[in-house]
Amino acid sequence: MADAPSTNAAPAFLVALREALGAAAVLIGPDVPERNRNDWSMQQPARPIAVVRPVDTAGVSMAMKACRAAGVPVVPQGGLTGLCGGSRPEDGWVALSMERMVGIEEIDPASSTMTVWAGTPLELVQRAAAEAGFYFALDLGARGSCAIGGNLSTNAGGNRVIRYGMARELVLGIEVVLPDGTVMTSLNKMLKNNAGYDLKHLFIGSEGTLGVITRVVLRLHAQPQCTMSALCALPDYEAVVRLLGEARRGLGPLLSAFEVMWPDYWDVVTKRVGVRSPLQQQTGGNGKEVYVLVEAQGTDEAIDGPRFERWLEKLMEDGALTDAAVAQSVADTQAFWALRDACAEFVSVLGQNISYDIGLPVKSMADYAARCKAALAERIPGCDSVYYGHIGDGNMHLVAWVPGMGPGLQPKEQMDEVIYGLVREFGGTVSAEHGIGTAKKKWLGHARSEEEIALMRLLKGALDPLGLLNPGKVV
Amino acid sequence: MADAPSTNAAPAFLVALREALGAAAVLIGPDVPERNRNDWSMQQPARPIAVVRPVDTAGVSMAMKACRAAGVPVVPQGGLTGLCGGSRPEDGWVALSMERMVGIEEIDPASSTMTVWAGTPLELVQRAAAEAGFYFALDLGARGSCAIGGNLSTNAGGNRVIRYGMARELVLGIEVVLPDGTVMTSLNKMLKNNAGYDLKHLFIGSEGTLGVITRVVLRLHAQPQCTMSALCALPDYEAVVRLLGEARRGLGPLLSAFEVMWPDYWDVVTKRVGVRSPLQQQTGGNGKEVYVLVEAQGTDEAIDGPRFERWLEKLMEDGALTDAAVAQSVADTQAFWALRDACAEFVSVLGQNISYDIGLPVKSMADYAARCKAALAERIPGCDSVYYGHIGDGNMHLVAWVPGMGPGLQPKEQMDEVIYGLVREFGGTVSAEHGIGTAKKKWLGHARSEEEIALMRLLKGALDPLGLLNPGKVV
Repeated sequence: MADAPSTNAAPAFLVALREALGAAAVLIGPDVPERNRNDWSMQQPARPIAVVRPVDTAGVSMAMKACRAAGVPVVPQGGLTGLCGGSRPEDGWVALSMERMVGIEEIDPASSTMTVWAGTPLELVQRAAAEAGFYFALDLGARGSCAIGGNLSTNAGGNRVIRYGMARELVLGIEVVLPDGTVMTSLNKMLKNNAGYDLKHLFIGSEGTLGVITRVVLRLHAQPQCTMSALCALPDYEAVVRLLGEARRGLGPLLSAFEVMWPDYWDVVTKRVGVRSPLQQQTGGNGKEVYVLVEAQGTDEAIDGPRFERWLEKLMEDGALTDAAVAQSVADTQAFWALRDACAEFVSVLGQNISYDIGLPVKSMADYAARCKAALAERIPGCDSVYYGHIGDGNMHLVAWVPGMGPGLQPKEQMDEVIYGLVREFGGTVSAEHGIGTAKKKWLGHARSEEEIALMRLLKGALDPLGLLNPGKVV
Repeated sequence: MADAPSTNAAPAFLVALREALGAAAVLIGPDVPERNRNDWSMQQPARPIAVVRPVDTAGVSMAMKACRAAGVPVVPQGGLTGLCGGSRPEDGWVALSMERMVGIEEIDPASSTMTVWAGTPLELVQRAAAEAGFYFALDLGARGSCAIGGNLSTNAGGNRVIRYGMARELVLGIEVVLPDGTVMTSLNKMLKNNAGYDLKHLFIGSEGTLGVITRVVLRLHAQPQCTMSALCALPDYEAVVRLLGEARRGLGPLLSAFEVMWPDYWDVVTKRVGVRSPLQQQTGGNGKEVYVLVEAQGTDEAIDGPRFERWLEKLMEDGALTDAAVAQSVADTQAFWALRDACAEFVSVLGQNISYDIGLPVKSMADYAARCKAALAERIPGCDSVYYGHIGDGNMHLVAWVPGMGPGLQPKEQMDEVIYGLVREFGGTVSAEHGIGTAKKKWLGHARSEEEIALMRLLKGALDPLGLLNPGKVV
């Protein structure tokens, strides 16, 4: 990589900004840390001309105005854990990082809300909520690194969406700096507020292309008092859809996760990664078995524990399940989740592979998996794929790979064509929870109509007429 | 009222539209029914030049294009039960009614969704969900008359927001006709879909000023199997906030309503309307008692009924409540709700009165009620007021009146100034669930900042540059 311009040649607007915000807030040229050059989308590290790291909203506003006056594009950055390139700068841009805007501003127990700075790591938010006797329901693997502002910018999902909703449903108010530097403070704490348009939803999920989120009011829930879980084997996908209905009826709002694993996924996890199956019966029957991790959160172990077990026993008696194991301890629960989380280990047993995050109507998932597996194998010789996901949310993940192909050699483009082509045919979405960024931009038209994309562009043009805030992302 | 123009003088674009859509779809001049001239905001009936009632989305699009070409403003209409004038036409406008776009298009049990036409009455949606073994959670007094499209346009609330959220949280997809007649079909069924901006939230709650909602995909829940409720008396508001916390912790997601009644409201209901109090102890102590109706929905009567009773008994033992009655039957539950719903009878005992829908941070509600009652009495001689609401949602209702003042004579303007002035001071909202329309437009600035309102105007201008869709409403 060629050297970035030295500070001696630093543009005047950056020097002025450094004077205004302090030396620690503006890192220019070679001082730009490696981490701010990329996100987890694994593209080439970029060469932004500077990283600006304000400590407050006024600083963010000042930075936005300065870059705008200089005509320099800005990319907002949180924990940089995005998988689609949303927070990756391009060469010559300014990265506007929230990394020093960290902390809990207030917890309001009466309103069950927490007001927090955008750069605060998710895990810190979760911990502060727990310490105050509450529960912040958003959770995902990158919890230690990702920032709450980024979680909102990408409308993060995770494992408990079926009960608590996506990130946007956990937000009551936001503060945003608009592309022209205007600070829009909308730190509402009320569940109900119909005074005019609901502006927060415009910024949540727009991946930092319409404004920079600086503070948020989060909705807190009551801390669950107990967690019940079971690992079930079912004869086929139709039985899984019936189980989902039974879980919704029998567990009601206690249902907190419903994770499905198709047989090929199960085989990789139990046979190659080597996670122990808690089920007595071994798999390998008709090749159609599907495995489900069901989780419920209750308020009283003495009541909700037996309720969960009785619900499952009845299903076993009715023949709805082939086999089931109920967690008797926290260790059991962790062992169940280890099966679901083993996908993180796939690179060590499968080698280089490509993972996907798509959405489909619930009823179509099994058909999709079968069609997609066959189509990938036909289109790409040797290509294998496995399927799993949060099916109650309409969210499927899949991993595809050609054995033996090293880093960068997997035929991603062809895989994309097969996978997203079928998504379009099934009326699904090319991104359930990861967003679009730059990585999936090409495929947006497979999930959204021309009219929808035209309206997205209209909104982008209205809010950012100069096209200087994270341009080229999403739309 | 002067006669509307006769059909002989009907503008050419309406005649052409009538030819294209059929005589039943375009009612011109004197043929405009009385009901389409107004909504429940009780303003003067207007004189629209026509009502257009298409039977499908293409008809809505054609109507929008025709009116746009003619430069005539259009107001979308659903069940016309809005309280703020959002669906009231002005003289010379065209009313675009969804009244013939009625029906359930599909129920998808696997996805737990229902696709429905915008003109379908809420009650019909609820019934269709129940018949399919599901529950549509939105509920409000006007259920028999209001249309689901209007519920979404105003982001309706109701009694069970604390558990299921506002209308917007019960929607997964929408179809909208934009001001230029473009049909944007976005009938998503997935809980997770992060492919680009979430456009539906722009239209939900914007009161028909940005587009006309024609079809929607609704999120269905499992039918609750039992309902538990209790009527509690508490010594003061601090005890109420503690009870709300205990309900959230002890009942968790089963908590489905938390309705609070201040002592003056209670007195009017029990002594003047004459609803029987289910509590043994009579009120009239320190004047600070507050009454709470707590409701929970469970999945199993045998489990959740005793859980609810034990939860309440423990609170009684701990001295958290002054008195409490638990419903032992559906009739009991109805009797408890009769106390809360008695506000509908106020006109018969108080005479003409003005009712308000505001939002406040939960912790500030009692202070607000005390300050507001005193300020109203001071500003307006003889003015009395009573307070009640869904406090878990931050939503308060209040009724103010000067005894003996007949229809139209109540000093509403002065009441507005006091009530909304204090809302601003307490950081609340001038509309929690009813919307802004024309009735509250003057007060929008008491709940939203200049920057927020400027952004609303920017959005309005971007989507409706000619200003022909429901102009002058909201912003």
